Amino acid sequence: MSRLGCNVEEPEPGATMLKDTRILEDGKVIAITLPDGQRYRFHAIWLRDNAWDPETRAAGNGQRLLTLSDIPADTRVTEARSKGRQLELTFEPEGRAIDFDCEWLAQHAYDLPTPASVGWTSSEIETWDASLATNIPQARFYEVKEHRAALARWLAAIRRFGFAKLGGGPVKSGALLDVAALFGYVRETNYGRYFEVRTEVKPSNLAYTGLGLQAHTDNPYRDPVPTLQILYCLENSATGGENMVIDGFRAVERLRQENARWFELLSGHCARFEYAGSPGVRLRARRPLIELAPDGELLAVRFNNRSAAAITDVPFDQMADYYAAYRRLGEIIDDPAMEVTFKLAPGECFLVDNTRVLHARKGYSGTGSRWLQGCYADKDGLLSTLAAIEAETEAGSRQLQEVTL
Amino acid sequence: MSRLGCNVEEPEPGATMLKDTRILEDGKVIAITLPDGQRYRFHAIWLRDNAWDPETRAAGNGQRLLTLSDIPADTRVTEARSKGRQLELTFEPEGRAIDFDCEWLAQHAYDLPTPASVGWTSSEIETWDASLATNIPQARFYEVKEHRAALARWLAAIRRFGFAKLGGGPVKSGALLDVAALFGYVRETNYGRYFEVRTEVKPSNLAYTGLGLQAHTDNPYRDPVPTLQILYCLENSATGGENMVIDGFRAVERLRQENARWFELLSGHCARFEYAGSPGVRLRARRPLIELAPDGELLAVRFNNRSAAAITDVPFDQMADYYAAYRRLGEIIDDPAMEVTFKLAPGECFLVDNTRVLHARKGYSGTGSRWLQGCYADKDGLLSTLAAIEAETEAGSRQLQEVTL
Repeated sequence: MSRLGCNVEEPEPGATMLKDTRILEDGKVIAITLPDGQRYRFHAIWLRDNAWDPETRAAGNGQRLLTLSDIPADTRVTEARSKGRQLELTFEPEGRAIDFDCEWLAQHAYDLPTPASVGWTSSEIETWDASLATNIPQARFYEVKEHRAALARWLAAIRRFGFAKLGGGPVKSGALLDVAALFGYVRETNYGRYFEVRTEVKPSNLAYTGLGLQAHTDNPYRDPVPTLQILYCLENSATGGENMVIDGFRAVERLRQENARWFELLSGHCARFEYAGSPGVRLRARRPLIELAPDGELLAVRFNNRSAAAITDVPFDQMADYYAAYRRLGEIIDDPAMEVTFKLAPGECFLVDNTRVLHARKGYSGTGSRWLQGCYADKDGLLSTLAAIEAETEAGSRQLQEVTL
Repeated sequence: MSRLGCNVEEPEPGATMLKDTRILEDGKVIAITLPDGQRYRFHAIWLRDNAWDPETRAAGNGQRLLTLSDIPADTRVTEARSKGRQLELTFEPEGRAIDFDCEWLAQHAYDLPTPASVGWTSSEIETWDASLATNIPQARFYEVKEHRAALARWLAAIRRFGFAKLGGGPVKSGALLDVAALFGYVRETNYGRYFEVRTEVKPSNLAYTGLGLQAHTDNPYRDPVPTLQILYCLENSATGGENMVIDGFRAVERLRQENARWFELLSGHCARFEYAGSPGVRLRARRPLIELAPDGELLAVRFNNRSAAAITDVPFDQMADYYAAYRRLGEIIDDPAMEVTFKLAPGECFLVDNTRVLHARKGYSGTGSRWLQGCYADKDGLLSTLAAIEAETEAGSRQLQEVTL
């Protein structure tokens, strides 16, 4: 639970958890010093807004009961009293004393060095290349269905790698919906709640042919894009048709290392995507190939040669360089050193974070058959389910610890 | 169909549509001049990548059959021949001649002045304030269900204003799903395919109480956020409980006009949102209150006092100003001059673009009852349905024109 190495030690009974507390700038700011010497400043207005007392936050669901306009703009701290795990602050002009949990404060400190470089990723993410092939994150369907700890491990692998396999599932049409139900909800689209991936005579989408498909993210012409995809195998006796996955985050990291300007071009301008393959459908999106948060966090990669529309949002004098960058990203994506390849057996599926991991398939033909089903879902549900299990486990182990102590 | 006022005139039969065509920079670039004197340059690689010949694009669904690596990096145009509506370009080293539609080229020109200021919105969007109250975009359920033109008008109003009402619908539980089915697909979440908005004894969410709710966007703790919301009325005899909508895009435009630095602070740093009101649910997101595309287009507004978590991604030395900006945005949102208020009758609903339009409700209590149902859906489906109807209509009127000529 500690953040950035600031370990908040258990205080002696009766002792305070803080080494020092100061009121600064006429109470507009306070500074706390932890036992390890780490010092953090907080603004009075921030503290007041983030109070957890029952008048500020609803007891049952934790939702905030106030709006910012309920809190005086000239809020200041006039008294700070450290007592054990708590820090009691008195706010004026409200004249209210409110307790803050010291550990919570240390975890939510924002008085920190400016974060990393453009393209940084959360510590929950680990990028990978072809070497992941010897250690593919995977689990068994009935295990994750029955055991919450196994489910959490599998979901944590998806959070970390943006990809995992699941084996030993039923070989029956629609089984992929049971996979989605393990953690969240299907995102229904014009392709249905799920769709058949097999050779069609008059394909509305090249996915429904035997052609090989370059590694891509699905549906970049949709906004919001589906953030998860499940591909579930029901038949796979055809020659070829292997699946491949590529970590798009690793690909754009490589691009950035090779040429920071190219990374900047692909993240600094919108591309366009389009799909109008079926009657009544005309999907379009205008989003960058590399999407960053305002502070440079790498949020998403979109890459799909089939549905890329004409790029018209790059100024003329940067288009040649943009295309050079786009070409190089495609080369990195096509590099076998990036790719993890596997052939799904009936009852096996894989799941990708569609904002990060590209998938591809090799062409197939000849005798035998290949029948996959696909569906979309969203990461919010997956990450929420995982966080909830982790919170239970944490609460459980804390309880156990307290009992043991 | 023309863009930025460049009207492409119908050529005389046999005459060319272009006034002039030049090959520049050893064929890396061509320049075309339209009859009105407008001149656009295009890169050879861009043209080749965006060709619409049947070897480049699949005939049925328009998907691209090539990847960029199939196109030589040193692609250049060696011949350009204007013939009627078409421009025939010969590409080397491939040695292929490909026709381009001149009107398509003019529509996709990127040799343009750099776009507008930070916070610009698409020409399809019109922001509004309380004065919209006298002209609320609305339609009748059975009319939009039966007539595609009426449906397109209603959907176009939602695209433009981010909000519309729909009246005359059935007063039956689940009717809101029929509204979603008019244009797209429900986004199922932990709240279900739809949820009940009425007073509960032990509410998991403050929405399920009689409390007034400050104007907000829904579920900012979800990523991706649901981009549309439908609120459908089944009973409303309680005193109070009026609904209000506020154009978040207008609100942040006002903020920018008042103080560009404040706009920059709220768009330049991530806020955090959290919801953990039900067992098994722990939703969290880290996104800015004002989301911009890399080129400054205004994409989304997130605002929700109840689920705002501690903001920890603003550096200490900017937090006081960030809070001043946040406070001011809340004041603008609370300003009655921004708000359109109405009371739904049973069988009426309203739909908001949840990335743009905030909704609120006044408190209610006492005698009578208030029962709404809500559901989420996504804009991709709505905009796709609308674009498809518009394309049919355009194709229809073009056909009619050709017949008439």
